[in-house]
Amino acid sequence: MSQPIPNFYAVIPAGGVGSRLWPLSRADAPKFLHDLTGSGHSLLRDTWDRLEPLTGPDRIAVVTGRAHRAAVEEQLPDIADLNVFLESEPRDSAAAIGLAAAILHRREPDVIIGSFAADHVIRGTRVFEFAVRDAVEVAREGYVCTIGIAPSEPAVGFGYIKRGSELIVDGARDASLVERFVEKPDLETAKRYVADRDYLWNAGMFISRADVLLAEIEASNPSLHAGLIALAEAWDDRDLRGPAVDRIWPTLPKIAIDYVVAEPAAERGRLAVVPGHFDWDDVGDFASLAKLNSHGRKNDLAILGENARILSDAASGIVVSHTNRVISLIGVKDIVVVDTPDALLVTTSEHAQRVKGVVDALKLTGRSDVL
Amino acid sequence: MSQPIPNFYAVIPAGGVGSRLWPLSRADAPKFLHDLTGSGHSLLRDTWDRLEPLTGPDRIAVVTGRAHRAAVEEQLPDIADLNVFLESEPRDSAAAIGLAAAILHRREPDVIIGSFAADHVIRGTRVFEFAVRDAVEVAREGYVCTIGIAPSEPAVGFGYIKRGSELIVDGARDASLVERFVEKPDLETAKRYVADRDYLWNAGMFISRADVLLAEIEASNPSLHAGLIALAEAWDDRDLRGPAVDRIWPTLPKIAIDYVVAEPAAERGRLAVVPGHFDWDDVGDFASLAKLNSHGRKNDLAILGENARILSDAASGIVVSHTNRVISLIGVKDIVVVDTPDALLVTTSEHAQRVKGVVDALKLTGRSDVL
Repeated sequence: MSQPIPNFYAVIPAGGVGSRLWPLSRADAPKFLHDLTGSGHSLLRDTWDRLEPLTGPDRIAVVTGRAHRAAVEEQLPDIADLNVFLESEPRDSAAAIGLAAAILHRREPDVIIGSFAADHVIRGTRVFEFAVRDAVEVAREGYVCTIGIAPSEPAVGFGYIKRGSELIVDGARDASLVERFVEKPDLETAKRYVADRDYLWNAGMFISRADVLLAEIEASNPSLHAGLIALAEAWDDRDLRGPAVDRIWPTLPKIAIDYVVAEPAAERGRLAVVPGHFDWDDVGDFASLAKLNSHGRKNDLAILGENARILSDAASGIVVSHTNRVISLIGVKDIVVVDTPDALLVTTSEHAQRVKGVVDALKLTGRSDVL
Repeated sequence: MSQPIPNFYAVIPAGGVGSRLWPLSRADAPKFLHDLTGSGHSLLRDTWDRLEPLTGPDRIAVVTGRAHRAAVEEQLPDIADLNVFLESEPRDSAAAIGLAAAILHRREPDVIIGSFAADHVIRGTRVFEFAVRDAVEVAREGYVCTIGIAPSEPAVGFGYIKRGSELIVDGARDASLVERFVEKPDLETAKRYVADRDYLWNAGMFISRADVLLAEIEASNPSLHAGLIALAEAWDDRDLRGPAVDRIWPTLPKIAIDYVVAEPAAERGRLAVVPGHFDWDDVGDFASLAKLNSHGRKNDLAILGENARILSDAASGIVVSHTNRVISLIGVKDIVVVDTPDALLVTTSEHAQRVKGVVDALKLTGRSDVL
């Protein structure tokens, strides 16, 4: 049914470990490689499947660490070699997305790229497609365009985008300029935002002409831009790529694309937004994972794990079983149990945000073997 | 310092699995084989060490299942062969203690036996010794004598003994007749009991002349008595014991000694009690185990397991670690986590009593492999 969008190329940065999902997520088994929805597929694979109708299989690039190359190629058997961009070490999202923009722009000067995280969950694929198609039309006009998610509840765990004046763009039904970004609000503020239709969740999706994106990077961080251009010039030469990556990549500033592109562009009236009326979650912690898998039934116990052997007596929350042990839960409410061969986590939804602190403590105490 | 008590023989029934301590206690690793106090010794061994000054090493008998023989002998290297009484299957406490009484009476007609559970925790060994010495003097007079624990708090998990009129016995400082037994009370009643010094905890310790005990059994359950006598007659004959056990033991009634001896004797004014002013706990469930190991500090996390690798962030309760996994607990209060190679339990002190239900469910669903 759906046709690929002309000039469009999808970029999937697949980098973050997902520390707040430890011990499920690990350095060698990051969040994007897990099936967190019981779909039978990893989040990365689901992301690919969602994008492929919009691009075709030859126009999706993945930016990932060298260590994850084999796992990524196993998840995405259709990916072409020239669409796998390997980082020698993590340098955050501006470098990752900027690298893809620079390489693709050199190969194809009028390319429009859209970057979509490898480890988010989206339900409502057709609605997602509409939003991307609209965003690409806005991007054609020279804007950096983001997709802001229409909030389904007053979430305090996400940042928000405040819509400004309307943009009239051919082929885009509901585009606006972004007035400003808002940090994670408190509950009262979040309730106001949801009541006011002009606030959308910031899902970190950016659609832009590659030349426009690179110009934004050049304007706000010239040395990052110079490094990316030098990398792109060497990239498609078998002999030059390796040495260029080794020389340049580790010197690039570690910074999020929000600060290098989105916020400066918003200030100069060059950032647009189209609303996304689909279900979206960044699955930032186990509370979010529990909610996602209990389908809104508050007293349910969500179970993840193909071979889970669970005995539950009046328990609710989530249990992730990556061993074949019998797990018995009695009377524990909103519990989070993550059972892996070398590490066990027991907490509650309320304290799920503090899992990152455990990971930090394990690093500090020299127990990185379980990270 | 202390001399063995003349005519005295200690009997340790080591039978119960301790289902409410699953998955720590198992059919093949019952409660009495575990170190539940961090002493470095099993409860069985601690029981032996407590009794040995009162009897000498040659006068402590253990009644246990055939399956536990090797483990018991490993725990008690000093035990003589003729002091290990093996049951072919569990037949409850009247049969177990009655068997010991019948055998020992046949060997030594004026023996006084005291039975002490293999899986209780006692602190205050000298005070315990005083109580046993007093009880033996009362038993010499032909009473069945129990040791009632002076309550340290209004416990609702134990039965109580109501003291009746005082008994004047040479060598016993504070003996009374038992007026009656009281089932586990509610909290208000328990508070009254503790205020009234005439209520003591029923710890299931019985001290009696073997002939008196056997007469009590004969009076209330003649067929049990007949079976025990027949077993005792065959016991010390190498050729006869095995066939007698196989023939008689499975036919004995499964009944607790409380119903066969203690309650009938109390009704006829033949049951005495001496108070025990020592710390005692039957470690009936994980709530009790947590309390025992947190030494009254309510916000502590008690940790059992030699190689435990625990990361706790604002957690309280108890964690039992029988694997070498890293266990991370965040913000969980009064939690009970029991981590074993093939089974994991997560509950709270409040729900600790319901662990037995899980064991029943595992039996019903054919997962006895983890019991």
